[in-house]
Amino acid sequence: MKKPFPPVYYADYLKLDSLLTSQKPKSDEYGDPAHDEMLFIIVHQAYELWFKQILHELGSVSEMFLKDNVDERNIGVAVARLRRITVIQKLLIDQLGVIETMTPLDFLEFRDYLIPASGFQSIQFRLIENKLGLNFDNRVKLNNMNYYTLVSDEHQKMLLESQNEVSIYESIDKWLSRIPFLNTDHFDFWKYYEGAVGVMLENEKSIIVNNPSLTDEKREKQLAMFASTVENFEALLDEKKYEALITEGQRRLSHRSMLAALFINLYRDEPILHLPYRFLTYLVDIDENFTTWRYKHALMVHRIIGAKVGTGGSSGHEYLLKTAEKHKVFKDLFDLPTYLIPRSELPALPEELKKNLGFYYTATLNN
Amino acid sequence: MKKPFPPVYYADYLKLDSLLTSQKPKSDEYGDPAHDEMLFIIVHQAYELWFKQILHELGSVSEMFLKDNVDERNIGVAVARLRRITVIQKLLIDQLGVIETMTPLDFLEFRDYLIPASGFQSIQFRLIENKLGLNFDNRVKLNNMNYYTLVSDEHQKMLLESQNEVSIYESIDKWLSRIPFLNTDHFDFWKYYEGAVGVMLENEKSIIVNNPSLTDEKREKQLAMFASTVENFEALLDEKKYEALITEGQRRLSHRSMLAALFINLYRDEPILHLPYRFLTYLVDIDENFTTWRYKHALMVHRIIGAKVGTGGSSGHEYLLKTAEKHKVFKDLFDLPTYLIPRSELPALPEELKKNLGFYYTATLNN
Amino acid sequence: MKKPFPPVYYADYLKLDSLLTSQKPKSDEYGDPAHDEMLFIIVHQAYELWFKQILHELGSVSEMFLKDNVDERNIGVAVARLRRITVIQKLLIDQLGVIETMTPLDFLEFRDYLIPASGFQSIQFRLIENKLGLNFDNRVKLNNMNYYTLVSDEHQKMLLESQNEVSIYESIDKWLSRIPFLNTDHFDFWKYYEGAVGVMLENEKSIIVNNPSLTDEKREKQLAMFASTVENFEALLDEKKYEALITEGQRRLSHRSMLAALFINLYRDEPILHLPYRFLTYLVDIDENFTTWRYKHALMVHRIIGAKVGTGGSSGHEYLLKTAEKHKVFKDLFDLPTYLIPRSELPALPEELKKNLGFYYTATLNN
Amino acid sequence: MKKPFPPVYYADYLKLDSLLTSQKPKSDEYGDPAHDEMLFIIVHQAYELWFKQILHELGSVSEMFLKDNVDERNIGVAVARLRRITVIQKLLIDQLGVIETMTPLDFLEFRDYLIPASGFQSIQFRLIENKLGLNFDNRVKLNNMNYYTLVSDEHQKMLLESQNEVSIYESIDKWLSRIPFLNTDHFDFWKYYEGAVGVMLENEKSIIVNNPSLTDEKREKQLAMFASTVENFEALLDEKKYEALITEGQRRLSHRSMLAALFINLYRDEPILHLPYRFLTYLVDIDENFTTWRYKHALMVHRIIGAKVGTGGSSGHEYLLKTAEKHKVFKDLFDLPTYLIPRSELPALPEELKKNLGFYYTATLNN
Repeated sequence: MKKPFPPVYYADYLKLDSLLTSQKPKSDEYGDPAHDEMLFIIVHQAYELWFKQILHELGSVSEMFLKDNVDERNIGVAVARLRRITVIQKLLIDQLGVIETMTPLDFLEFRDYLIPASGFQSIQFRLIENKLGLNFDNRVKLNNMNYYTLVSDEHQKMLLESQNEVSIYESIDKWLSRIPFLNTDHFDFWKYYEGAVGVMLENEKSIIVNNPSLTDEKREKQLAMFASTVENFEALLDEKKYEALITEGQRRLSHRSMLAALFINLYRDEPILHLPYRFLTYLVDIDENFTTWRYKHALMVHRIIGAKVGTGGSSGHEYLLKTAEKHKVFKDLFDLPTYLIPRSELPALPEELKKNLGFYYTATLNN
Repeated sequence: MKKPFPPVYYADYLKLDSLLTSQKPKSDEYGDPAHDEMLFIIVHQAYELWFKQILHELGSVSEMFLKDNVDERNIGVAVARLRRITVIQKLLIDQLGVIETMTPLDFLEFRDYLIPASGFQSIQFRLIENKLGLNFDNRVKLNNMNYYTLVSDEHQKMLLESQNEVSIYESIDKWLSRIPFLNTDHFDFWKYYEGAVGVMLENEKSIIVNNPSLTDEKREKQLAMFASTVENFEALLDEKKYEALITEGQRRLSHRSMLAALFINLYRDEPILHLPYRFLTYLVDIDENFTTWRYKHALMVHRIIGAKVGTGGSSGHEYLLKTAEKHKVFKDLFDLPTYLIPRSELPALPEELKKNLGFYYTATLNN
Repeated sequence: MKKPFPPVYYADYLKLDSLLTSQKPKSDEYGDPAHDEMLFIIVHQAYELWFKQILHELGSVSEMFLKDNVDERNIGVAVARLRRITVIQKLLIDQLGVIETMTPLDFLEFRDYLIPASGFQSIQFRLIENKLGLNFDNRVKLNNMNYYTLVSDEHQKMLLESQNEVSIYESIDKWLSRIPFLNTDHFDFWKYYEGAVGVMLENEKSIIVNNPSLTDEKREKQLAMFASTVENFEALLDEKKYEALITEGQRRLSHRSMLAALFINLYRDEPILHLPYRFLTYLVDIDENFTTWRYKHALMVHRIIGAKVGTGGSSGHEYLLKTAEKHKVFKDLFDLPTYLIPRSELPALPEELKKNLGFYYTATLNN
Repeated sequence: MKKPFPPVYYADYLKLDSLLTSQKPKSDEYGDPAHDEMLFIIVHQAYELWFKQILHELGSVSEMFLKDNVDERNIGVAVARLRRITVIQKLLIDQLGVIETMTPLDFLEFRDYLIPASGFQSIQFRLIENKLGLNFDNRVKLNNMNYYTLVSDEHQKMLLESQNEVSIYESIDKWLSRIPFLNTDHFDFWKYYEGAVGVMLENEKSIIVNNPSLTDEKREKQLAMFASTVENFEALLDEKKYEALITEGQRRLSHRSMLAALFINLYRDEPILHLPYRFLTYLVDIDENFTTWRYKHALMVHRIIGAKVGTGGSSGHEYLLKTAEKHKVFKDLFDLPTYLIPRSELPALPEELKKNLGFYYTATLNN
C-alpha cells in the first residue's frame, strides 16, 4: 500500500523565504529610496523566472530530437511544449508594458546606482539563444564586443560550453534530412514540385505577355517583377545556387531539409505530417515572438532613456533593434512561404503514398 | 564632488543565485520527475513576485492618504501607482493562460505530492485584500474555516495584524468625507442634485403615463420598472434609507462620502476634480480586475481538476467563484453609475465655485 | 491558358461605400450630437462582423461532422477553424475594454434615443448559440420572456428555424458514440477504467484510514471528502445513475459518448486520437471564452449603467451574469477532468490496439 | 414635457442589412469558393471600421487645439480620446493574430483573384497619417511611387486635400510655443535648465577623470561616451545647432516648443501641467503603437506570402518595415527623454510660479 506523502506548506514549497527577500534596491542601500526601483527589480526577476521555464522546455524538446529515431508520440509532446513557450513569450512582451509604467524621470532617480549592470548580462537569455541555435557569427556585437565579454568568468564558461551543445536548430536539420516519403519507388517529390512550379510560372508569364489591357510600360514592369519571382524559385530549385547561398550565409538548412520542410508544409493535412507541420510552425512562432519582443524592447528603452548611453555603456536601443533583425534562428523556415504553390496546382499524391501517410486503422480498413 | 558608485553586476543585483535555485519540484525529490511541475512552481513564484509589487504600490498609496491633509501633488502620483497595479493585474490574468498549457493529465502526475499546500495559503494575496480594505465579515469561508486558519502561526499573526491597520478603503472614506465644495455659502450640491433627479423622474413618469402608443399592459410594466428606478434613487436620497442599507451591510461608505464621490463623478471635468475622479475610477478598475482574475481562476481550476477535491481539501473552483462575487472592496463606487444623471439635466455650477475648482493661473487671469 | 482576372480595387472589394456610411448616430439625427455615439455604433458593428465570421466557421465545421463518416483529414481542418474562433473570441473580450473608454456620463448623453434597442436583439449571437447547440430549455429568460420575443417577425422565424437544425453539439454526440476502439476483441476500455478507478480509490481510502498522524476529527473530515469523490465517480461508472442525471438535465452527452471522450482524453498521445483530443479541447475553450465574455460583459454593463434599467428594459447586468453560468454548451466535456486518473494508474493498451491507433507507416515498419 | 423618442430596433440602428451583406468573396463569384476569403474580407472591414473611429477621435481633438485659446477643460477630454485611440490600436495589433490563423497555403487559394488590390490603398489609414501630421517628405515610397498614386481620382483628391488641413502635429507645435511660465519676471526656465545640465555634466566628467580604479584605456572609452552625451545636450542647448537639425530634417518642432515640452515633462507633477504631460505622452503612445502595428504587420505579411511580390505589386513586407521606422510623427517628443535630468538636480521653482501652476483653491487658502 502507498503511504501518504509528508504534508507540504505553500510558502515552503515555493521557497518564498528566499524568493521574497531577494529584492534589495540600491537606492535603499544608499539611503535615498527611489520608489520605482522595486518595480525595476521585480520585473527583471520575473523575466529571469520565465527564462528558466523556457530553458526547461527547450531542454526537454532538444533531448527528444537528439535521438536518431524520434518517437512520433513525442512530437505531440514537443509541440505542446513549444506552444507553451509561445504563451510565455506573450507574457514577456506584455511585461514591457509594466516597465513602461515607470517614467523616464522616475528611472533617473536610481539609474546611476546600477552602472554598469545591464540586461546584456542576462546569461539565461543567451543560453536560450544558444539552445535554439543562434549562430555565433550572426550575433550582433555591442560596441564591438562579443556577447560573452561583459560577464563573470564563471558565466563566460557556461556560455562557451553551451555553444558546443547540439542546438535545436541542428537537431531539426538532421531530423528533417532523414524524413522519408520524399523519394519512393512511385514518387519523387522533387520532380513533381519542380514541374508544378514550371507550369505555374509559364502560366503567369503568358498572362503578362498576352494581356491586351497592359501598356508597354506596365508590361515591362510586370515582367521585371516576374523575373524576380523566377529568381526566387531558382534559388531553391537549382541546388548549386542554393549551396552558394549557404556559403554566403544567406541559407543555413541543408537543401534536403529545406525540401522536407516544404513537403511537410504542402501536404500538412496528411495525418502523419500534421504534427511535424505544427512543430515547424511553432519554431517560427517562437522566432517571431522573440523578434517582436526585441523590437518592442528597443522602443521601450528609447522611451525611457532616449538617446542616452545605457547603464551598460551602450546604445541599448540600437543594439536591440539590430538583434530584432538579425537574431532570427529559423529564418529559412520563416522564408518558406516564398516557395509554396496553390494546392490546386499540386499533383495529387499516389494512393500508395497517401496510405503511408495515413493512420493504420483507416488504411487497413480501406485495404 | 560626487564619487562613482561601486560597480554592479546584473546577476548580483537581482540575487539570481537564490532566485534561480528556488525551484525544487517534489516529483524530483521523490525520484519520479514530472516535467510540468517546474511550470507549476514558476508560475506561482511569478504570482508572488507580482503580489509583492502590488503590496509595494498599495503601501505607498495608503501612506499618502493616511495624512489629514492629502497633498494634491500626491494624487497624481497615487493615480500613476494604481494604474500600474491595473497593468500588473492584466499580467496576472494572462498568466492563467500559461497554467492552462498544463493539461489535467499532466497535473495528476505530481498533484498528490503537494497535499495539502494550496493557493489558499498565499499570505501576500490576503495582505493585498486587507490593505485594500476587504471587510473580514464579507470574506467567503472555505469549508466553514476562516481565511487565516490553514496557515502557519507566524503567518496567522501577520494576517491578524494587517486587519488592524488602516486600509485604503478607510482612508478614502475619510478623505472623501472631508472634500470641500459640496456645501458652500452659494451652493448646496445636495439640494441641486435632489432637484435635478426630481425633475428627471417626473419627466420620465409623465412620458409613460401620457404615451398614447402604449397598451395598458405595457404601461403597467413600464410603471413597475419606473418604480424600481425611483426606489434606487431613494436609497441614496433618503439618508435614513441609506443608513439602513449600511446597517444591513449593503452599503459601507458613509453617506457624505458617497455624495462626494458622486459630485466628483458628475463634475470630473473641473480641473481640481480631474485627478480625484481618476483615482476613484482606478480603485474600481482594481476591484474589477481582481474579480475577473478570480472568475477566470475558478474556470481554470475547474478545467484542470474538474469537480475533484483540491489539494487544499476544498472545491477550489466554487470557493473562487464566490470570492469573485463577494470580495469586491469598492462595491459602493462600482454602483455609483446608478445615480448619475445626464449632464444636460445638471444645473451649472455658480461662477464662484467654478473658479474655486479651476487653476490659479486662469482664475486670476479672468479676474 | 488562364486569363488574368479583372483588376480589383481595395475600396470596391471591401464595399467600403456601404460599410463606412452605415454609421448614423441618433444624436446627430436629433440635432444634439453626442461624440461617443459613434464609438457605440462602431463597436457593435465590429461585434456583428466577427459574429458573422464565427458563424462562417461553425457552419463549415458543422457540415463536416454531419456526415456519417467523418473524414479524418477534415478533423485537422476543423481544429484549425475552431482555433480561429478562439482567437477571434479574445478580440471580442478585448473589445469590451474599448467600450469601457466610454464613461457612464458620456453614455447618458444619447442613451434615451436608443430605447428599446438592445444587444439582446443580436440575431447572429443567438444563431451562434443555437449552432453550437445551446439547449432551448437551458436559456436564461429575460423578464420572463423567451429569447426570441423582442425581435422582428422575420428574425424570429430565423431563430426558430435555426433551433431545428442539427447543432454541433448533436453531431459531436453522434460522432463520439460511433468512435471505435473502446470495445474490441482484446480490449474493453470500460472494464479497464473501472478497475483502475477502483484500485485508486481503495488506495486513497486506505491512506486516510491508516494515517497515524491524523486526529479522529481530521480523519472523519477526510473520509467525508473521500465519500464525495466516490460519489463523483459513481455518477459516471454506474450507468443508471448517469441516465438519471441526464433525465434531471445535469448531463446531456450519452453515456457511450462520455466514455469515448474520456478515452480520447486519457490516450490523447496515440496518433489517431491526437486531433480528436484537440477538437474536444477547443470546444471547451470556445465555451470558456464565451463564458468569460459574458461575465466581463456583465461587469462592463454594470460599470456603465449601474443598477439602472437597460435600454431594452431589463437589468442587462444580471441577465448576462446568469447566462455566463448557464449558457455553457459543452458542460459535460468541461466536467471531464473530474474523471481523469493518473497515467501511471492506467493499464497499458494491448499492442494490437496501439498499432491500430498509430500511423500506417510506423505500424507496417514494425511488423 | 418631453416626448418619448420613436422606438429603435437593434438591426436598424446598426444598419445590419447593409453591413452584413457587404462580404462578397471573389472566389465565390468565380465559382471556386475558398473558405478563408471571408476571414480576409471581414478582418479588413473591421480595420476600416476602427480607422473610421480613430479619424472621428482625431478630428475632434484637432478641432479643440485649432483654437487660439485652448480651453483647459478640453485637455482632459482630449486626453481621454487619445487614450481611447491607444486602446483601439491594441485591438488593431491583436487583429493581426486573427489574420495569422490563415495559413500561406489557404491564402494562395484566392490570392490571384484580388490583384492588384492592396492595403496600400486604404484611404482612411492615409488620412489618419495626414491628420496626425506625417510629413509628405518623410513618407516611404513604394516602388518609387507616391502614396496617392494607386488610388482612384476621387480618393486622390481626398488625400491631397487632407495634406493641406492643419494637422494635430502643427496645432500642438503652435500650442506648445504659446505655453506661458517658461519665462516670467522671476524665472527663466532656459537658464535654470542650462545651469543644471552644466553642473551635471561637470560632475560626470570629474568622476571619470578622477576615478582611480580606471585603466587609461577604460578612461578614454568613458570619456568618448561622455563626449557623445555632451554633444546630445548641445544639439538642444545651442539654438543654432538645433535650427541646423531642423534644416536637415532631423528635428521638426520649433526650439521654443521643444523647451515647453521639456518643461512640461520635468514639472509634470504641478497641477496645471499634469494634463498637458499626459497629452504629450499619449501622442508618443499613439506613434509607438502604430510603429508596433506596422512592424508586426510586416512580419505577418512575410509569414503569409514570404518573399513573393504582393497583390499590389510590391514587397509589402519591406515597405512596411521601412514605414515602421520612418512614419513616426512625434519623433521629437519620442526623443525627449534624452534631455531629462534627475529631479534632484533640478532647481526648485520659485514660490510665485508654483502658485501659478497650482489650483485656485489651495493657492488662495495658502495666501
